[in-house]
Amino acid sequence: MGCVQSFRELCDRQKNTNVRLSLPAVCIVWQTAMIILFGVFIRYNEESSPRWVEYRKAKNISSDIENDFYFRYPSFQDVHVMIFVGFGFLMTFLKRYSFGAVGFNFLIAAFGLQWALLMQGWFHSLDYSDGKIKIGIENLINADFCVAGCLIAYGAVLGKVSPVQLMVLTLFGITLFAVEEYIILDLIHAKDAGGSMVIHTFGGYYGLSISWMLYRPNLDQSSRLQGSVYHSDVFAMIGTLFLWMFWPSFNSAITDHGDGQHRAAINTYLALAATVLTTVAVSSLFQKHGKLDMVHIQNSTLAGGVAVGTAAEFMLMPYGSLIVGFCCGIVSTLGYIYLTPFMEKYMKIQDTCGIHNLHAMPGVIGGIVGAITAAAASESVYGHEGLINTFDFEGEFKDMVPTRQGGHQAAGLCVAICFGVGGGIIVGCILRLPIWGDAADDNCFDDEAYWEVRDDSLQYLKNDIYSTF
Amino acid sequence: MGCVQSFRELCDRQKNTNVRLSLPAVCIVWQTAMIILFGVFIRYNEESSPRWVEYRKAKNISSDIENDFYFRYPSFQDVHVMIFVGFGFLMTFLKRYSFGAVGFNFLIAAFGLQWALLMQGWFHSLDYSDGKIKIGIENLINADFCVAGCLIAYGAVLGKVSPVQLMVLTLFGITLFAVEEYIILDLIHAKDAGGSMVIHTFGGYYGLSISWMLYRPNLDQSSRLQGSVYHSDVFAMIGTLFLWMFWPSFNSAITDHGDGQHRAAINTYLALAATVLTTVAVSSLFQKHGKLDMVHIQNSTLAGGVAVGTAAEFMLMPYGSLIVGFCCGIVSTLGYIYLTPFMEKYMKIQDTCGIHNLHAMPGVIGGIVGAITAAAASESVYGHEGLINTFDFEGEFKDMVPTRQGGHQAAGLCVAICFGVGGGIIVGCILRLPIWGDAADDNCFDDEAYWEVRDDSLQYLKNDIYSTF
Amino acid sequence: MGCVQSFRELCDRQKNTNVRLSLPAVCIVWQTAMIILFGVFIRYNEESSPRWVEYRKAKNISSDIENDFYFRYPSFQDVHVMIFVGFGFLMTFLKRYSFGAVGFNFLIAAFGLQWALLMQGWFHSLDYSDGKIKIGIENLINADFCVAGCLIAYGAVLGKVSPVQLMVLTLFGITLFAVEEYIILDLIHAKDAGGSMVIHTFGGYYGLSISWMLYRPNLDQSSRLQGSVYHSDVFAMIGTLFLWMFWPSFNSAITDHGDGQHRAAINTYLALAATVLTTVAVSSLFQKHGKLDMVHIQNSTLAGGVAVGTAAEFMLMPYGSLIVGFCCGIVSTLGYIYLTPFMEKYMKIQDTCGIHNLHAMPGVIGGIVGAITAAAASESVYGHEGLINTFDFEGEFKDMVPTRQGGHQAAGLCVAICFGVGGGIIVGCILRLPIWGDAADDNCFDDEAYWEVRDDSLQYLKNDIYSTF
Repeated sequence: MGCVQSFRELCDRQKNTNVRLSLPAVCIVWQTAMIILFGVFIRYNEESSPRWVEYRKAKNISSDIENDFYFRYPSFQDVHVMIFVGFGFLMTFLKRYSFGAVGFNFLIAAFGLQWALLMQGWFHSLDYSDGKIKIGIENLINADFCVAGCLIAYGAVLGKVSPVQLMVLTLFGITLFAVEEYIILDLIHAKDAGGSMVIHTFGGYYGLSISWMLYRPNLDQSSRLQGSVYHSDVFAMIGTLFLWMFWPSFNSAITDHGDGQHRAAINTYLALAATVLTTVAVSSLFQKHGKLDMVHIQNSTLAGGVAVGTAAEFMLMPYGSLIVGFCCGIVSTLGYIYLTPFMEKYMKIQDTCGIHNLHAMPGVIGGIVGAITAAAASESVYGHEGLINTFDFEGEFKDMVPTRQGGHQAAGLCVAICFGVGGGIIVGCILRLPIWGDAADDNCFDDEAYWEVRDDSLQYLKNDIYSTF
Repeated sequence: MGCVQSFRELCDRQKNTNVRLSLPAVCIVWQTAMIILFGVFIRYNEESSPRWVEYRKAKNISSDIENDFYFRYPSFQDVHVMIFVGFGFLMTFLKRYSFGAVGFNFLIAAFGLQWALLMQGWFHSLDYSDGKIKIGIENLINADFCVAGCLIAYGAVLGKVSPVQLMVLTLFGITLFAVEEYIILDLIHAKDAGGSMVIHTFGGYYGLSISWMLYRPNLDQSSRLQGSVYHSDVFAMIGTLFLWMFWPSFNSAITDHGDGQHRAAINTYLALAATVLTTVAVSSLFQKHGKLDMVHIQNSTLAGGVAVGTAAEFMLMPYGSLIVGFCCGIVSTLGYIYLTPFMEKYMKIQDTCGIHNLHAMPGVIGGIVGAITAAAASESVYGHEGLINTFDFEGEFKDMVPTRQGGHQAAGLCVAICFGVGGGIIVGCILRLPIWGDAADDNCFDDEAYWEVRDDSLQYLKNDIYSTF
Repeated sequence: MGCVQSFRELCDRQKNTNVRLSLPAVCIVWQTAMIILFGVFIRYNEESSPRWVEYRKAKNISSDIENDFYFRYPSFQDVHVMIFVGFGFLMTFLKRYSFGAVGFNFLIAAFGLQWALLMQGWFHSLDYSDGKIKIGIENLINADFCVAGCLIAYGAVLGKVSPVQLMVLTLFGITLFAVEEYIILDLIHAKDAGGSMVIHTFGGYYGLSISWMLYRPNLDQSSRLQGSVYHSDVFAMIGTLFLWMFWPSFNSAITDHGDGQHRAAINTYLALAATVLTTVAVSSLFQKHGKLDMVHIQNSTLAGGVAVGTAAEFMLMPYGSLIVGFCCGIVSTLGYIYLTPFMEKYMKIQDTCGIHNLHAMPGVIGGIVGAITAAAASESVYGHEGLINTFDFEGEFKDMVPTRQGGHQAAGLCVAICFGVGGGIIVGCILRLPIWGDAADDNCFDDEAYWEVRDDSLQYLKNDIYSTF
């Protein structure tokens, strides 16, 4: 802790938010690197190449409709909306940081998905016959998932970092994600359809650790801007609703064809519905006069979708989904009321969007629910083939049994937390270097730092008023 | 009438909008009830359970792509967007009631869909072998449809009721809907693909009757807030457009696989296009200086989608769809110009969103169009098998003929109106009880009643201006 | 040029924006014409008619899921969102023209798609056996595409024309589009999956030519309104993001089933991602202090989707898509910085939304990329069948070879430019007639001209302030 402290002091410095050289340099160099690496490594897979016709005939596939594109493309588009509109607009709630919320979200997602295609490709889609990564629609979905982890982390540091820092956060975040995901899904053989562990738990703790490393003791200087106005809260609801509505697609996007996708969508739909009611209940109960708080409605209503992620494709049962949603609405809303102020005051973790309540805690709950549901699986419920299909008890894992699978799920959760916390501390150290152009405390949460803001409405109004006197 | 009047007086009272106990209590108790009922009754159906693999083989289904999920999931997601973003944002047009519009819409939809799964399940999806309701993607769509009826009703009372009243409105609304739908679709054997009758006519008259029961003679006290500002009108257009664009999915979501969904989408697409032009024409023609009114563009452009609902899967023909849209644009816009003020002044019906013009009237038109189209059906147009498939002339209805089907359609419309009016009056009585925490007249249309509004922009601007003097 | 000048002077006149007779007349007459023409010409095709069941059996199609509806409906809905929300909200950036942006976009798209179904139907879907146009889901997509050309043109004249002029612009635009498309796709046999040439190049030059004909030398009188405010920029990002996210659907909507749609989606996804990074880089590099400009983020990030349109279904390769996106981000952003002011000052072309940078230039680049990619095609890359399928080397074109196809692609690009420029000049002449009710220079970019604006927020605030003194 002492060493962390002195490192912090070392990095305190005069702030200069001019990113005129660093931001273009990072963008151009990294995009060029992507082009080269894509040229060397990335090709179409057999379902997206013109040889599909021959492949289809060879595999005796009767119709083009059995191309994986038609199983997954509608879900992919929904996930894509969640990444860009959902995450982007959810963060527009601050009164003068909407450009930064939507714009930087856009930037790092667009970069992150390219790097994710490479990183995940090397681990999961490498064709050893020619050393190329073969991509199809499922890779695009996974790249979007991977990006989601970094966007969650952005929520913790929203308004306090420069776009260059965000690019660095994303580069390392994607890298860590791909390694962690490979360990959890392939080595440990945990299942995680909706990414409660690999996406939300990892992304949440990654962002919180970075925010802890970048602690700003005097941030209340800019507290004037650290709140919402009426219309910025309505903009944020656009993000909330698109996340909420499309979460069934998120959790079912890469599950098994047929009943797997079907069941995951149903479970997520139900969990989210229950969350809304308990969020409203707790929000009203803990406020003077019983008034609802938009922060809770915008965020905690989504916690059920996070927590049902791992178990979405299991036989969680409809009432099980409702129970998960019920609990998460309560936990998440109480988190906003009690935990976020506590963490800021006593743990030096400033969490702008409250990702601990929306992603980290529900993610951990989701991992635990997944472990329990997996451990409780049985052939009487799933059927013989159903059990094997759902848990992939095939190949080297053909002797696996549900109870042991439950243990593997729990191990996966631990790995996600470790990668999140550890990776976040390391990346946080890097981001403290005085070269990234982040804003001084009193310029935080202000779009003026990185955007041309031509808003003359205030000025215009004032002139208008003066002229009448 | 006298008794209604005295009942009204009985219920006049001091207003207290503190819902700190009642709202959390209702949410927690009802959500708990949902969990118990789901635990007792609701299970996955054969297409969403892990036994799908065995089922598929037993039924000789060649591919996972024939799981109903892939036929209906894209439409489901569109419908879901209509329910939460469409209805929610359509109602944000009021200058200070956007939180209530989007937020309470969110709350009652999330509750309603759970109750709808149960109510509709008992009527339509009960597996008599084990007494369980077996759900799949079609049930989720139907639950969203069922919720739509209550959201329509919300439009009539927007800004004038408490969230607790809305929960009660929804509980009874869903219940009435499920019964009415069972009578119309199953007993009477009327067809209603897009719900012109069961959703829009019922929902419209249900809301109008409630609004009539909750008549506030002195509402103009809050007229200061009963209007839009520039940006709230733009927010409302988000709702309008998502409803308009996805209406083809709404009307085709639960029609027959293949040509049924295909034709319903085409008919709806065309009807809506025609409505836009006649709405613009009438809006401009009836305003001084020919200026367009955003209220009409936001609402009347959707009337064609409502009116084509019943007949969407019939052989309405492309030009028939255009004619329906043409007429509804005119009728609906004239309704906003003449009928809404008339109803408020002489019939004591205060209809905040004008649902009479957008849902009730076009719904009735849709029922009539459906009856005529059904009665005019013939084998020469539909083909032998096509006629049977389209109208389900099977089982106990295998001797049905088109002309008689037309009569059944008309009967269905009458049932929808009766349930709407009758149910609305009864529920309106209940909502007049002085226990629900609704706002006084001069607090209507104001988010401050039920929401923490932290908007310091006005204050901030004023300080800024004062300091310059 | 002299004749153009004198024609311009001839048309200068007193401005009257009252469209109370002309707008309703145009809407009603044209909609009536549509109904008559649809009645005479338009019928369902075999996949949307009730005879589908018989057709399926006759063609030995094993399942309803092979109805074209299921291949294309998700993409159709995404395209539909791009047309109405994407284009509509992208243009809301002006501080007082959001109603006009969204509302007139809505109007002309709803009219245009009907006329497009007829025009394109006569060229592409006419059943010669009975003289009827048989429509299905692909026709709806193509109608939306056709409308896109006119909406692009609207971007150039945004805020400067009356709704009646827009209806005329659309009527002629759709007509020209259908002819041009028939020449390029059918006669010349160029391929253009995402419409770089037929949609974007044509639409861009059509709009620019019209804007040149309608040049307003004294437009700076209304420059007070020709800018954005903070929230209008956030609204515009809704349009940007829905265009950006759904562009893969746009480019893949009407490509071949199977690998064609799959590959087009991947290529577009990648090109767009690369564009974002170079747009950010150039935007920051060319501004004082390195601040980002929302105009660039809103528009130039989309250029990659335009430029990859023609080649999206070819073997552009993932790195090729990145390269196209990389270049377009740079070219488009530089266009906003240097070319738009240059064109306004020296070429008398006022381009409100900068469609030259977003559609025209990237469209031309897309045409060139398509020609090169086609010319470089080979059986070793595509496979024998793949090459034939991708380029439709069938029927009368069965002896075509890739290099010649490249030439045909280039010829198609020239046709698109000629139709755009030529058509725009002619239609621009028509629009200069003093009968259309367009606004005077100092009423441009102001919704008050054509909309009832009830915004009392300014007044209310002022009263509030005065009362405190």
